[in-house]
Amino acid sequence: MKIIGIADTTFARYDMAKSVMDELGKTGTGFRTIRYTVPGIKDLPVACLNLFQKDADIVIALGMPGPKPVDKISSQVASMGLMEVQVKTGKHIIEVFVHEDEASNDRELSWLCDRRAREHALNTYNLIFRHELLMENSGKGLRQGFRDAGDTEGINGESSARRH
Amino acid sequence: MKIIGIADTTFARYDMAKSVMDELGKTGTGFRTIRYTVPGIKDLPVACLNLFQKDADIVIALGMPGPKPVDKISSQVASMGLMEVQVKTGKHIIEVFVHEDEASNDRELSWLCDRRAREHALNTYNLIFRHELLMENSGKGLRQGFRDAGDTEGINGESSARRH
Amino acid sequence: MKIIGIADTTFARYDMAKSVMDELGKTGTGFRTIRYTVPGIKDLPVACLNLFQKDADIVIALGMPGPKPVDKISSQVASMGLMEVQVKTGKHIIEVFVHEDEASNDRELSWLCDRRAREHALNTYNLIFRHELLMENSGKGLRQGFRDAGDTEGINGESSARRH
Amino acid sequence: MKIIGIADTTFARYDMAKSVMDELGKTGTGFRTIRYTVPGIKDLPVACLNLFQKDADIVIALGMPGPKPVDKISSQVASMGLMEVQVKTGKHIIEVFVHEDEASNDRELSWLCDRRAREHALNTYNLIFRHELLMENSGKGLRQGFRDAGDTEGINGESSARRH
Amino acid sequence: MKIIGIADTTFARYDMAKSVMDELGKTGTGFRTIRYTVPGIKDLPVACLNLFQKDADIVIALGMPGPKPVDKISSQVASMGLMEVQVKTGKHIIEVFVHEDEASNDRELSWLCDRRAREHALNTYNLIFRHELLMENSGKGLRQGFRDAGDTEGINGESSARRH
Repeated sequence: MKIIGIADTTFARYDMAKSVMDELGKTGTGFRTIRYTVPGIKDLPVACLNLFQKDADIVIALGMPGPKPVDKISSQVASMGLMEVQVKTGKHIIEVFVHEDEASNDRELSWLCDRRAREHALNTYNLIFRHELLMENSGKGLRQGFRDAGDTEGINGESSARRH
Repeated sequence: MKIIGIADTTFARYDMAKSVMDELGKTGTGFRTIRYTVPGIKDLPVACLNLFQKDADIVIALGMPGPKPVDKISSQVASMGLMEVQVKTGKHIIEVFVHEDEASNDRELSWLCDRRAREHALNTYNLIFRHELLMENSGKGLRQGFRDAGDTEGINGESSARRH
Repeated sequence: MKIIGIADTTFARYDMAKSVMDELGKTGTGFRTIRYTVPGIKDLPVACLNLFQKDADIVIALGMPGPKPVDKISSQVASMGLMEVQVKTGKHIIEVFVHEDEASNDRELSWLCDRRAREHALNTYNLIFRHELLMENSGKGLRQGFRDAGDTEGINGESSARRH
Repeated sequence: MKIIGIADTTFARYDMAKSVMDELGKTGTGFRTIRYTVPGIKDLPVACLNLFQKDADIVIALGMPGPKPVDKISSQVASMGLMEVQVKTGKHIIEVFVHEDEASNDRELSWLCDRRAREHALNTYNLIFRHELLMENSGKGLRQGFRDAGDTEGINGESSARRH
Repeated sequence: MKIIGIADTTFARYDMAKSVMDELGKTGTGFRTIRYTVPGIKDLPVACLNLFQKDADIVIALGMPGPKPVDKISSQVASMGLMEVQVKTGKHIIEVFVHEDEASNDRELSWLCDRRAREHALNTYNLIFRHELLMENSGKGLRQGFRDAGDTEGINGESSARRH
């Protein structure tokens, strides 16, 4: 039984943890999830350390950086913190950040959060249970949220690029 | 009995520690506070280490970065230092920075400092004593200082977004 | 028998690992490769730690940062993570990043990825097996991907600058 | 007997160490100073480590970043290094950087260097011997070099803001 | 017998190691040099760790960052890596970076590389063998490469500022 940690924030404007848990449930079994919610993205690194201490094998860190320059700096500091925790523990933290200004309205923001969270949930599942699938998709231009970029051979779009 | 550390600076133009202590006192019991004041924000990480050595369970770091480009760099370095202390100790530091240029005059600056300090004091209390409340507010678009952003479902503003 | 680790991503739009393995095979013997694929560039540092744990002597980290400002920040965070792993382990990670906006179309992007991957594969081989060759080429203005810059004495271009 | 370390550079254009030692001498007793001079600001972190190894209780790091963009990056790297030494040792390094472009001519630059060095010398003395004084000045808008900003209640200027 | 490590790259367009070794030879005795060449500046931190493992007392790291924005980021990452190695080992790495766009043509670039390398070789020698000389030159506005800035008292230019 593997343990997947989920760290998220009250600052974010969409409950991405719900999407992650739903997608993981649809994808497979053999794991259970544990969750730790913090106020903002700069609190996520300690949340992840805490989840690893509770024996998480991997953690998904969900956050929504704001649109102002000061928010962009916060986002970089949060990412560096998540990186330092990964280098310290040797374990993956799948960072799922949706920048509030990536979407043009609340409806698109909801869609983007849900979709990116689900695709990264799948990545997380694959890293633990189906690592060979990632290798088969190496260099395929896969994206989380918006359309896959596809590889440079012209294989583009959702249907053709990805081997499930 | 939990210990809440408060680290602050003589550079800041508002005594946010006073707001924090007042709000914590109104919110609950079961803790005592210890305080360590330093000249500027780049001195806060050592202040936090010092408070953790005196058995603080969590620290609130209060600072007011100036408006010049060189101040923004100092702010980023200070934040990275606070991050490194968190990764080293595995304990939360709630960073409460009010940038001097977030407010248009001294009166608004006072209001913003007081309010952000109080809302982060509540976050700090919740992280120690009522962690389940943070999880209930996950993805609700809560902000410290200015109005809550609300979630993407259109639940917006102070009264509706937040479950106390 | 030396072990060369190869870490790559599903985000990249070209399979640089294939170019690396082909070039290494053409260059010499005395090694075997191991591979670890992750979703994106910020996942590469843990991939490298994993490969070093499996006794890799050196790792080649292949990635393709996107063209947006947020991608540039991700790239810097990923590079800092690769740097921290190197400082921690004392072993080389040869970072091979091709920024999507370095090329003007998919055809040039393919060409650039293939070529930069091959030239860094050679660097990797030289670091393990022919370190004296690097010293002979010190200060020669060698580049990976586009044309060598040559040294300041006017020795310029592919044929004259490089001693193989 | 406490030990105050002083780290400075040959790159700086004013001998701030002299101002620091003069001010410390005027302020009190119970300490001795040790000094370590390096070429530039990026050499200061090792200078500080060296002074801590010689039992310094606190270090003042004096530097003068140049005006070019490349100098600003150097300054940030130096500050990050000083931060990492502080996180590693748990001891304060009072960073006293005067950016060459903060002053409009050499005369003002001299004045600024002397004054900022003296005010930080006082901060350093207070951190060791009179920590309660810093707490009394918390949130008072104190600045080192140019005029104090004062607090947001309108208490402004040199005479009123500061309790000595 | 002291050991001076020299780390350099094949990316640089001038053989600064030659200038360093020539200058060190002219300056004094009591040391020997060891050298480690890598492809690019981001490979220098591991080169330095390697030289320290071979008992180097100090390392000179020679590099030439390119002129593009992506090169500037690489340069900052490389500098942060050199900083982390210094904080880890407590030993000086004298970073000698000549940015390709500091000079207006190849002839000036050669001159600048040679001269900066020689002046930093002298700094390195002084840090090990004549540390008191650095203290005498503290705050004198010494520069490596272009003209010394001199101190703010108006003592300017090569001849007057520097005490050899």
